[in-house]
Order: sequence, then C-alpha cells, then structure tokens
Amino acid sequence: MGDPLEQLKSRLTDLHGLGDIAFLLGWDQRTIMPPAGTGHRAQHLALLQRLAHEKLTDPEIGRLLSEIDAGSLDPDSDDAGLVRLAQRTYDKAVQVPVALRGEMALASAEANPVWVRAKETSDFAMFLEPLERNVELRHRYVECFEPQEEPYDVLLDDFEPEMKTADVSLIFDEIKAELVPLIAALRDREVDDSFLVGHFPLDRQLALDHEVVDMFGHRPDTWRIDPTEHPFASGAGIDDIRITTHYYEDSLKSLFSTMHEYGHGLYEHQIPRRFAHLPIGTGCSLGLHESQSRMWENLVGRSLPFWRFFYPRLQEAFPEQLRGVEVERFYAAVNRVQPSLIRIRADEVTYGMHVILRFELEQDIVNGRVELRDLPLRWNEKMNDYLGVEVPDDANGVLQDTHWASGLIGYFSTYLLGTVMSVQIWEKAMEDIPDLEDRIERGDFTALREWLGDHVHALGRKYTPEETLRRIVGTGIDAKPYLAYLKRKYGAAVTA
Amino acid sequence: MGDPLEQLKSRLTDLHGLGDIAFLLGWDQRTIMPPAGTGHRAQHLALLQRLAHEKLTDPEIGRLLSEIDAGSLDPDSDDAGLVRLAQRTYDKAVQVPVALRGEMALASAEANPVWVRAKETSDFAMFLEPLERNVELRHRYVECFEPQEEPYDVLLDDFEPEMKTADVSLIFDEIKAELVPLIAALRDREVDDSFLVGHFPLDRQLALDHEVVDMFGHRPDTWRIDPTEHPFASGAGIDDIRITTHYYEDSLKSLFSTMHEYGHGLYEHQIPRRFAHLPIGTGCSLGLHESQSRMWENLVGRSLPFWRFFYPRLQEAFPEQLRGVEVERFYAAVNRVQPSLIRIRADEVTYGMHVILRFELEQDIVNGRVELRDLPLRWNEKMNDYLGVEVPDDANGVLQDTHWASGLIGYFSTYLLGTVMSVQIWEKAMEDIPDLEDRIERGDFTALREWLGDHVHALGRKYTPEETLRRIVGTGIDAKPYLAYLKRKYGAAVTA
Repeated sequence: MGDPLEQLKSRLTDLHGLGDIAFLLGWDQRTIMPPAGTGHRAQHLALLQRLAHEKLTDPEIGRLLSEIDAGSLDPDSDDAGLVRLAQRTYDKAVQVPVALRGEMALASAEANPVWVRAKETSDFAMFLEPLERNVELRHRYVECFEPQEEPYDVLLDDFEPEMKTADVSLIFDEIKAELVPLIAALRDREVDDSFLVGHFPLDRQLALDHEVVDMFGHRPDTWRIDPTEHPFASGAGIDDIRITTHYYEDSLKSLFSTMHEYGHGLYEHQIPRRFAHLPIGTGCSLGLHESQSRMWENLVGRSLPFWRFFYPRLQEAFPEQLRGVEVERFYAAVNRVQPSLIRIRADEVTYGMHVILRFELEQDIVNGRVELRDLPLRWNEKMNDYLGVEVPDDANGVLQDTHWASGLIGYFSTYLLGTVMSVQIWEKAMEDIPDLEDRIERGDFTALREWLGDHVHALGRKYTPEETLRRIVGTGIDAKPYLAYLKRKYGAAVTA
Repeated sequence: MGDPLEQLKSRLTDLHGLGDIAFLLGWDQRTIMPPAGTGHRAQHLALLQRLAHEKLTDPEIGRLLSEIDAGSLDPDSDDAGLVRLAQRTYDKAVQVPVALRGEMALASAEANPVWVRAKETSDFAMFLEPLERNVELRHRYVECFEPQEEPYDVLLDDFEPEMKTADVSLIFDEIKAELVPLIAALRDREVDDSFLVGHFPLDRQLALDHEVVDMFGHRPDTWRIDPTEHPFASGAGIDDIRITTHYYEDSLKSLFSTMHEYGHGLYEHQIPRRFAHLPIGTGCSLGLHESQSRMWENLVGRSLPFWRFFYPRLQEAFPEQLRGVEVERFYAAVNRVQPSLIRIRADEVTYGMHVILRFELEQDIVNGRVELRDLPLRWNEKMNDYLGVEVPDDANGVLQDTHWASGLIGYFSTYLLGTVMSVQIWEKAMEDIPDLEDRIERGDFTALREWLGDHVHALGRKYTPEETLRRIVGTGIDAKPYLAYLKRKYGAAVTA
C-alpha cells in the first residue's frame, strides 16, 4: 500500500478539496445564486460536509497516523506540521458521534430562519426555543470531551485552537480596564464627519474597490469582488480568491469593508503553493485571519499615510462630497469614536467592548449563570455599563448577530484576539521595514504584502496559533501594543 | 439495515448530488471564475468524478440491486424506473477499470489545450498525437464490453442509451438522400439578410434575452443568464437553472442561442420534484435534450407566428437596424439557407449534413477505415460532396469542434437525432393543442410549456430514450416528419 505518510496526504488532499468546493458553493449562494436555489444548496452543502466528515474520521486515518513515526520528522517540516494538525483534528473529530453532529447541523439550520424573523420583528421570545436547543446541544458536545478546566474551553478551541478561556479573560480584562475610560474620554469630542454621509454613486465605489484591491496587489487573473448582503472572503484555492462587499449609496463603508476582506483574501492567496492542497494550506485560526483583515482595514486603511496617498483619488471620484475637505479632516472623520449599538459598524476604539460583552455573556450561558430568557436584560445592562448606550430594542441588541443562531458559541472572541494580534504583527513589520509608513504614503504596498507572505502566510496552519504568533513576533499574545496604539492614535492624531 | 430500495435511493441521492455540484463548478468555470483558477478547478472536478465513480461502483450497490425484487414493482413507477436505470448504469460502470477511466480523463485533459493551439494555428499535425491517444483509449474502452455488432455501438450508447449504429445509419441515410438535393435547390435563392449584420448594442440584447426567457416562462427566482464563450445550459437543481449565451455586437445570434438554451433549461426545470434528487431526475438522453432546445430555437423561435408576436419588440430595441424591414422579410432572413463551414452557425436545413459528416467519419475512425492523418482530406471531400463548400483551412474544418479533443466520440449524432425528434414531438403537441400556433402568435407559451412538462419532462430518465419517445408520440424515431417540415417550410414560407 506504500508509504503511510503519502497515503495520509492523498486522503487529506481529498478532504481539503471537499472544503474548497464547499467554499465555492457558499460563495455562490451568498452572491449570485437564484434565490429559490436555497433548498438544493442546503442539501449539497450537507452532502459535502458528511463526505468530509466520513473522510476525516475514517479509521484508516487513525491507522496511518499511528504508523507514521512523527518523531523522525523535522519538526519544522511541512510533513510534521501536517501530521500534527491531522492528529489533532482526527482526535477531536472521532470524539463526537455522527448523530450529534447531525443534530447540531439540523438545529442550526432550523434556528437561522427563526432568528431572521425574530430580528425583523425584534422579538427575542420567538428566538428563545431554538437558542435553548443550540445551547443544549453545545452542552452535549462539550460532554464528548475530557473534562476541561472550563467547559467553554472546548468551544473556544474549535475557533482558536488551544486557546484557553482563562487566557482570554486575562487579556480582555486588561483591555476593558483601559478601554472604558478611553471611550468615556473620547465620546464627547467634536469630530465633523457630515461629509461622509451623502450620495456616493455605486459605479464609482465599485471602480474604487477594484482599484484598491489591485493597488494593494495580487497575482493577475486570480481575484473577484462581488456584492453581497453580509461581506465575507472566500475562495476555491490560492489562485481563485473571492471577496465580497456590500454597497451603500449613502456612505463609503464598502471601501473599508473591501480592505478588510482583502486582508482575509491575501492570507489565503499567499499560502505556499507546495502545501496549498493540504489541510495545512489555509489560515491558521480565525484570530490570525482577523489579524490580517483588521491590519489592512485599520492599520493601513485608517492611517494618515494611506490617506495622504489615496485621498486625491477619492476626492476625484466624489468631488461633490469631498471638495474642500482636507485630508486631515477626512482622516479624523473616518476615525471618529462614537459608542453605538451595532458591533459591525463600531469604530476601532469601541469595537473591543462589543466583543468583550459577548465573550462574557457566552461564558455565563455555558456555565448556566444566566437564564436565556434574561439575556436581553443582561445584554442591555452591559451595553450601558461599557459603552453608555441605551438599547432601544432587541434587533439592535441581543439579536443583531447571526452567530448564536448558527450555534457558533466561542467564535466572537477571535475578532478581538485578531485585532490585538494585528497590532503586534504590524509593529514587527515596522521593525523589519523601517520605512513602511513612507512606502504606504507613496502607494507602495509591496514590501508589506511580501513581508506578510514570508512571515505570516508562509506558515499556513503548520503550527498552533500561539506558536505561529511566537514565530512571527517572538512573543505570545499581548494586549499592550494594541492599547498603546489606540492611546497614541486617538490621544493625538485624530484631533489633528 | 432497512429496506434495500431505500438504501439504494439514499446512495443514489448522494451520487446525483455530486453530479449537481460538478455542474455548478463547471458553470462557474465557464462564466465567472478568475482565469487562473483553472488548475484548482480541474482537481476539484476530478475529485468529484472519482467520488461519484466510487459511489456508483461500490459493490454494495450491486448487492442492493440484487436484493430488490424489481419484478414486484409497478413497471411505470418511479421506483421501477430508478432500479432499471441504476442496474444499467452500474452494470456498465463496473466493466471499466478505474485505471482506464483515469487514463481517459487524463488524455482528454491533455488533448484539450493542444487542440486549442492547433485550432488557433490551423495545424492539424499538432493535434494528431493526442487524437491518436484518445482514439486508442476508446478502442480499449470498447474492449471492456461484450462484443457488439458494431464497436461504435458501445460509444454511441454512452450518449444515446440503447441506440444502435445501424439504426442511426438508416435514419441518417434517409435524411441525406433528401437534404443534399434540397440544399442544392435552396442554395442559390436570393434572400436579403443584410439588416442582420450591423450594430446591436449589447445592453439591449441582454435585456431582450431576459425578456424572452421570462416570456417563455419559469418559476420566479430560479433562473440566471450569463455570458460565456461557448453557450451551454447547466444547473444545480430544478430551482437553480443557469443558461449562458455569447453576445456578438454585430449580430442577433445570441437571441436564438438563448432560446436554444432555454429549451435545455426548461427540461431540467420541469423535472418532477418528487424524484429530482435521484438519477432519474434529469433529461433522458442527449438526443431528447436536444429535441427540447431545437424545438424552442427553431420550431418556436424561427417560426412566423412567433415573430408576428415578438418582432415589434425587436424593432423597438433596434430601430436603426430594423426600421422599414417587414416581419416577413425578417422571417425569411433568419431562415436563410446557405451552406457554410461551421456546424454551430449552420441554418436548419444544412445543419443535418454537418452532423452526418461527423457520424460517418467517426465510424471510419473506430473501424480503422481511415488513417487519422488523412482526416482533414476526408473531411474536406465530404464538405464538398454534401454542402458544396471548399474548406480553406483545418481551423474551419476538421478542427472546429472540441468533442474529439475531449474524447467524446459518439456524441455528434445526438444533435441530429434530437432535431428529428423535436419535429415528432412538436407535431404531437400540435395535435393536443390545436390552436398552438395561434397561442404563440398571441405570445402565450404556457400551453406548450405545460404540455412539455406533462408529456416529456415528467418522464425524466425513467425509461430508455426509445421508450420515452414512444410514450410521448406513440412511435419510435422517424425522420419523415422532420423532412416534411423542412420541405414545407423551405419550399414555401421562406420565400414569402
């Protein structure tokens, strides 16, 4: 039968291929599928998921893994990384009965349309029963594994492998202690952003989005940008990267959203070709993925050097809106700090508190410290405590995000972990490329793109997120650079 | 383990699902994929094909089939149709070694780009070696089966199940005997079609294509029309139908091509929902599929009643081109008979000879009656004999179609068989809907669409093509109605 490592690779190539195919089907569904195709698509995605699960949990995978002498492999080799990942993924997957996975998938599929209706009518009570079902199934899921210090660890591990609840709590508590007073200090500053609301013709936004993505850079004939309801990045391989955006005729949000998705897309685009067909050939974790998207959106896209370069193009595209607005005023406006209700519309400073709120509530849910029917109340209290905003209704509160409807408990913290890591990685890039800001001000993004390729993307999923970060920046996750960045940027430059 | 029939259905549902997913990937590749994605896509399609082959030839399918008491099923039931089809497909599939299938797929994949270059440079010699390889592999494929009266029967059967070479020869000889003199009589008729060449703005063509498809009719939110290089119809289920077209700024070809693909799309769209997820839930054969596309393109789309209704809309869309051109002149122009070099651009009368030429050459190839290096010579001789045209180069001759590069030997005849059946089915529809032409002249396509749904599409793939046709029209395939139609239409009306 040949070398067990080669046999393993062959099986894992199929597994990864099924994932890529599912990405394409998901992309199609969310961009261009005839709406009535939903029924077929759900069946096809369920089929792919089932086939992938069968491939992953095939006892032959376990046998091959046991036959491979992992100790004899160079621990930094692709093969060693693949075997580590495969062992870890296999060991987790075989703990969970197929029937429970099916129940979880079904419960999510059933909860989602109920959540859509509940949000539309701002009626949390309608959503309570499917939410209870999702939570109950997560409890059963947690019970499949060895007892952990925190049951929430099991859930978190699915999104940020080997990250522990206690570690996240430490980081988030440190952030909270600094953010709450920072927000209080910034919230009443006068910043004129009136020119960001108005009429921005869609065709010019579309052209600018393409211009930005081409300017940031990628190989030719490999990317698409398409409109969608909720933006995401996807792709069916390193040469087939698809990012999406949502256009608003009355604002420039799409531009920042496109830069965000560019960061996700670039991560997958720059995965080394030699292992792109294997499970190590993708972003390392949700957190590290978010570090890439937040970097392009915020550290590049909301920086003064970037706008010194690109603002004339923007003025040219929207002369009615931006004539007479200097770049410093524009920069201040796109960085205005204003506590608000909705996470995905939050500025850089308040964003973290939206995530911390959800992280805390999720632990209360999993540990039974909150009755689910009391969630809106608890949500609203925290919004008031952390951001000083009154929640007018559940559509703008506890019902705003889709994650819990999809059973994704443990996911939210990766948004803020990624943001924290984005600053750590950015500062390391600045060390290695001392004139990085000058380059950006000249419209030269090559050095940054290549540095990310060599130092971040080249590692794929060969190591755990913690080890990956350590190899990039030399230390573990650390909130201090992020907090210092916020204080530096929002203590001074914004008021320029 | 439960009822063997239910188990079989479950496995065949997966098999059909993999086919639908592959259709979607193929559609994406040919419409909107970033060009560099070709490499990934080939791997993903190969993976889906391999998984489908494994599912189909799983010995468990054979065991389940042997356990099902097919004799106890109502022969007209869906279940009986499914078991017949599964048995037939399984029996064929297990004859062919996986290694040979792999070699065939690889040889096709390798031959295709060579053919593209050979066609571009009109250099048949360049294509000779990959063509020889494809032919050699077809000989090995034929040898996998019980000896047939004609080896070509094995190949034909893959495209038009249970059709025999001898039967096709009889039909085609009958057609040839009538067409050659008909073409000779029509070729020198003066028909003014100068107004069909000019400037037809793409946006208006696109709007008209949508208008036609919506007017012919379908369920809401279920269809897409997209531009592509070589038009085709595809879909990922009865509620997700995707047709494509190629726009030419200087002609109206796209409109007829869209009507053609509408016919293919409608066939899949009207497959009964109760078995749409199973292998019987698709068009019966390539020939019957073509009967549907040719019907909408020619019997509807090139008819005088249709243009009496729709011509004012066309004139409104292209006033510069069509002002002052009466509907009868327009009708004569779109039905102009003119022997030409390229099959896909041929008119209704000469089209058949292009197919017959290929059918005859393919048999000579398979029976070794022609040296492959002499193919261009033999092609050019036949073009001269049958259509009276001189072939200037191989790009406009033997290299024009992609089929042989893809190893598709036995496919071509289905185009003409379908055209023949389209007239038989049309005449049956006219019997059942006596005012059909009046309805079309009023822009009412509902009766025809529903009749096709009830009499053709409702049968799916439950029966062989011959039995399917017999159930629709009461007889087997017969060229006489087709020949009578051509003589009636082209002997009189065209010269109106």
